[in-house]
Amino acid sequence: MQLARVIGNLVSTVKNEALEGRKFLIVQTLNADLSPKGKPLVALDSVGAGVGELVFWCRGKEASFPFKRDSTPTDCTIIGIVDSEKHVFNGE
Amino acid sequence: MQLARVIGNLVSTVKNEALEGRKFLIVQTLNADLSPKGKPLVALDSVGAGVGELVFWCRGKEASFPFKRDSTPTDCTIIGIVDSEKHVFNGE
Amino acid sequence: MQLARVIGNLVSTVKNEALEGRKFLIVQTLNADLSPKGKPLVALDSVGAGVGELVFWCRGKEASFPFKRDSTPTDCTIIGIVDSEKHVFNGE
Amino acid sequence: MQLARVIGNLVSTVKNEALEGRKFLIVQTLNADLSPKGKPLVALDSVGAGVGELVFWCRGKEASFPFKRDSTPTDCTIIGIVDSEKHVFNGE
Amino acid sequence: MQLARVIGNLVSTVKNEALEGRKFLIVQTLNADLSPKGKPLVALDSVGAGVGELVFWCRGKEASFPFKRDSTPTDCTIIGIVDSEKHVFNGE
Repeated sequence: MQLARVIGNLVSTVKNEALEGRKFLIVQTLNADLSPKGKPLVALDSVGAGVGELVFWCRGKEASFPFKRDSTPTDCTIIGIVDSEKHVFNGE
Repeated sequence: MQLARVIGNLVSTVKNEALEGRKFLIVQTLNADLSPKGKPLVALDSVGAGVGELVFWCRGKEASFPFKRDSTPTDCTIIGIVDSEKHVFNGE
Repeated sequence: MQLARVIGNLVSTVKNEALEGRKFLIVQTLNADLSPKGKPLVALDSVGAGVGELVFWCRGKEASFPFKRDSTPTDCTIIGIVDSEKHVFNGE
Repeated sequence: MQLARVIGNLVSTVKNEALEGRKFLIVQTLNADLSPKGKPLVALDSVGAGVGELVFWCRGKEASFPFKRDSTPTDCTIIGIVDSEKHVFNGE
Repeated sequence: MQLARVIGNLVSTVKNEALEGRKFLIVQTLNADLSPKGKPLVALDSVGAGVGELVFWCRGKEASFPFKRDSTPTDCTIIGIVDSEKHVFNGE
């Protein structure tokens, strides 16, 4: 799973029907020092995250496990919110 | 899922039979500032997107969910059209 | 799926038995201007492609759909030949 | 699978229910000379690894095999601890 | 699949039980000119490869096809040995 910051929402009216009613968030994957790295992704939210929160997301087929697994096309799902940014890297 | 701009079509006569009658589009994945990033991909379209539109696509096995899942070899499917480019990054 | 140029063959005598009789090709993934990008890959061929042709390939589990799906270990399969290089990017 | 060093823990109270009771570790993927490469990842632990240890992890759907496979959303699971760092590259 | 050179072994006593008795090799993925590219990976061997040989490996769920597919967590399996390095790129 990858650490990311929620940086925005995405509104889509025309979309695959299995995605009706799902909340989309834009997430930015992060480096070890919590700086941005790489391009932002469109994620489905399974835990109630909001803009500004530090989360971790799962990719691939496993990303559809929190939903109706056989019909939801998602490869990026937020599966947890990190409690405290200070706890993330305790070895540094 | 990843944000992308549709930048072209692709015509293929000789192809896997499970792809007969499908529409192929060329998509360019985008950065946070909606500038191009990385190489363009060949995508299947499941929502009726056209050249110039801002879309998001799904990769991996999940990309075949909108189609006959067990026979369509696709790893890049457009699953939604973004309503407004201004709504994408509301945190910036 | 990704655009690529077929740039060579690969001969392998010692290989997984599910790959017996399959044709291997070396493909080079391409940029928007059809210049090479990234490292070449070993692909299985499902459409009869040859050296020099512009093709598109599929990765992941979906890549095994054109074959005996539950026993062929492949993550890169050529699934189509592009008709004309001029048709690829019509927006430029 | 990829070589990585365990560099920290991650605490998450709000998470997908299939992840209840699982231990999260932050891992840093490594180069051939065991220097860090790329961004750190959030991994599930299946072998009892701790901070500082050299491990290897598996990604994709296979990463959920050590757990209840059909309900655990993970794409990064630690599946082994390397015995000795000296044994890793014996060709150099 | 990707071309790689076997560059070492890996010994792991503490590992997922589905990996008991499997041989691990360290492989280095290669460029078109057979120079190293990217970080080395830990691979399972299904064909009897050894250090120094030119091989190709498969990633993702397909990588577990040569083994007990539903219980072996692997995302990198060597599935063939290349006969001759001279035959790889015949277009150059």
